[in-house]
Amino acid sequence: MHQSVVVGDLSEREILARISARTGIADTAIVGPGDDAAVLAVRGALVATTDTLVEGPDFRREWSDGYSLGWKSAAVNLADIAAMGARPAALLVALAVPNDTPIDYVERIADGLREACDELAPGCAVVGGDLTQTSALTVAVTALGSTEDRPAVLRSGARAGDTVAIAGDVGVAARGLDVLFDRFDGSAPRLDELGAEDRRAVERQLRPVPPLALGVAAAEAGATAMMDVSDGLALDAMRLATASDVTIDLVWNALGDHPSTALRGGEDHALLATFAGRIPDGFRAIGRVVEAGEAPLLVDGASYEGEAGWDPYRDWQAPGGPVGWSA
Amino acid sequence: MHQSVVVGDLSEREILARISARTGIADTAIVGPGDDAAVLAVRGALVATTDTLVEGPDFRREWSDGYSLGWKSAAVNLADIAAMGARPAALLVALAVPNDTPIDYVERIADGLREACDELAPGCAVVGGDLTQTSALTVAVTALGSTEDRPAVLRSGARAGDTVAIAGDVGVAARGLDVLFDRFDGSAPRLDELGAEDRRAVERQLRPVPPLALGVAAAEAGATAMMDVSDGLALDAMRLATASDVTIDLVWNALGDHPSTALRGGEDHALLATFAGRIPDGFRAIGRVVEAGEAPLLVDGASYEGEAGWDPYRDWQAPGGPVGWSA
Repeated sequence: MHQSVVVGDLSEREILARISARTGIADTAIVGPGDDAAVLAVRGALVATTDTLVEGPDFRREWSDGYSLGWKSAAVNLADIAAMGARPAALLVALAVPNDTPIDYVERIADGLREACDELAPGCAVVGGDLTQTSALTVAVTALGSTEDRPAVLRSGARAGDTVAIAGDVGVAARGLDVLFDRFDGSAPRLDELGAEDRRAVERQLRPVPPLALGVAAAEAGATAMMDVSDGLALDAMRLATASDVTIDLVWNALGDHPSTALRGGEDHALLATFAGRIPDGFRAIGRVVEAGEAPLLVDGASYEGEAGWDPYRDWQAPGGPVGWSA
Repeated sequence: MHQSVVVGDLSEREILARISARTGIADTAIVGPGDDAAVLAVRGALVATTDTLVEGPDFRREWSDGYSLGWKSAAVNLADIAAMGARPAALLVALAVPNDTPIDYVERIADGLREACDELAPGCAVVGGDLTQTSALTVAVTALGSTEDRPAVLRSGARAGDTVAIAGDVGVAARGLDVLFDRFDGSAPRLDELGAEDRRAVERQLRPVPPLALGVAAAEAGATAMMDVSDGLALDAMRLATASDVTIDLVWNALGDHPSTALRGGEDHALLATFAGRIPDGFRAIGRVVEAGEAPLLVDGASYEGEAGWDPYRDWQAPGGPVGWSA
């Protein structure tokens, strides 16, 4: 039987050479990997965020191959850059891996990082990183972007009268997680056993495809507020409403075929934005901003009483989950 | 007996509130923690690096209190920014902590991060971060800085005839690690049992004090090459020589009272630089750059045959150690 090479079999130099051969070159890079730090030319203000995936609370290795883990690590961070109306420029990746991790798995993480950048944010690439040994596989990614000549779009700018709009899937990744728990708890997902919709949902849970280019488009169209929907549309809409000191009133019938799943689903990393005027192509209206009332979130004018969103303690059945102070 | 509050007793929101109350405000911050990403005004090119400390390979909790861990996490990353001749601007911190970690320990990490910034790089502060549950306490820090109106100083610019100079301690932190292993393996360091020099060495191992302001000073003085000495003066001098395609010839008698410890010691995060002209205040000459020969490193004109530097597999007696693709 083929004995696979694991991280502990190789020197640090060999592992890094294998990774950096796969991570591409950022358009903004003046100095890439290999010196004490990367050097980038950014235009306008710098936008920066960090988000970590830890095995157990954030992913399971039987569900996520290395490629999916790398892809998701990039996508969730790039979505936070796009949600500021900024253009993603570069990633830094702190990888901590157990010694018994197959080197193929680590190489596939690098492939997933690169391909997520190429597909979702062309010109963006990994410009630096760090490799450490640990007992719990951990991928900590920092994403950097630039506002270019636009102001950053904050959560706090929504005003009564604005239209609430969304770009990207809502509820698809949540459905995918339900399918994984219901059908494949403890095993690898067998996609060929699934119908088309469930299969796509699982794929989106493992490799989300946030509409990153629409972040810049929203900023150019004058979005008054924007955020990445990472913890559920209901919970994140409440956060945007609270930050802006307004109430958001969503229209149930505008939330697609499965409105309750859409309201609790977050891991699609849709972009939630408010506009005083025209909504740019790619966004769809789902409600409006009204004066702050008793509840931050209404659905069809009534206070929202449903499940508020992603709770890793409840939904993931693991001892914790990710939160961010820039989330 | 007082039962201390642990991370698992608190909600994510409570923990983040406790951390962000302690981390200060960066001078360059336009938008700090609380939105999808931080927004910073940087002047010149952006410099970015990431470095992770994992319990076991990189630190031991019986030796490092939370404050020391936070301090060191900041200092080692800020040193990489300074080594590019850049001014540190901001940190992002991905914290992954076991549920049974006392909240006091986490708060002290935040204190150490803030005070290292205040003392070593005034104006720099934590601008964002992420908190996750894990089994292995992990602090992944990304440091950002700006070149302002100067070019970045790379490892590759040293030329024959340049003077080799260093700023900051070399070998002190390595001596401190020796003391910790020899005297306190498995226990907390009892500093009052130590003489003054050993005590200072342990303190510097746990809370290094790299000469960060001298990074900008070196760039302003026209340093031709520079790097952070993180893995030992001998090993890092070889790396600089190789990147520049030259040989470095060090003077044994210029390496302080313990030249062999200086050559293998790295965790002080001294700044190693080369200058074609005047050496700025704070640096001291330790050798010269010569045409590339067979060996990248000479000491008093002879090929260096000693211990090359920090090897976490050998020196730390743990299953791994940190390396970086921007190291």
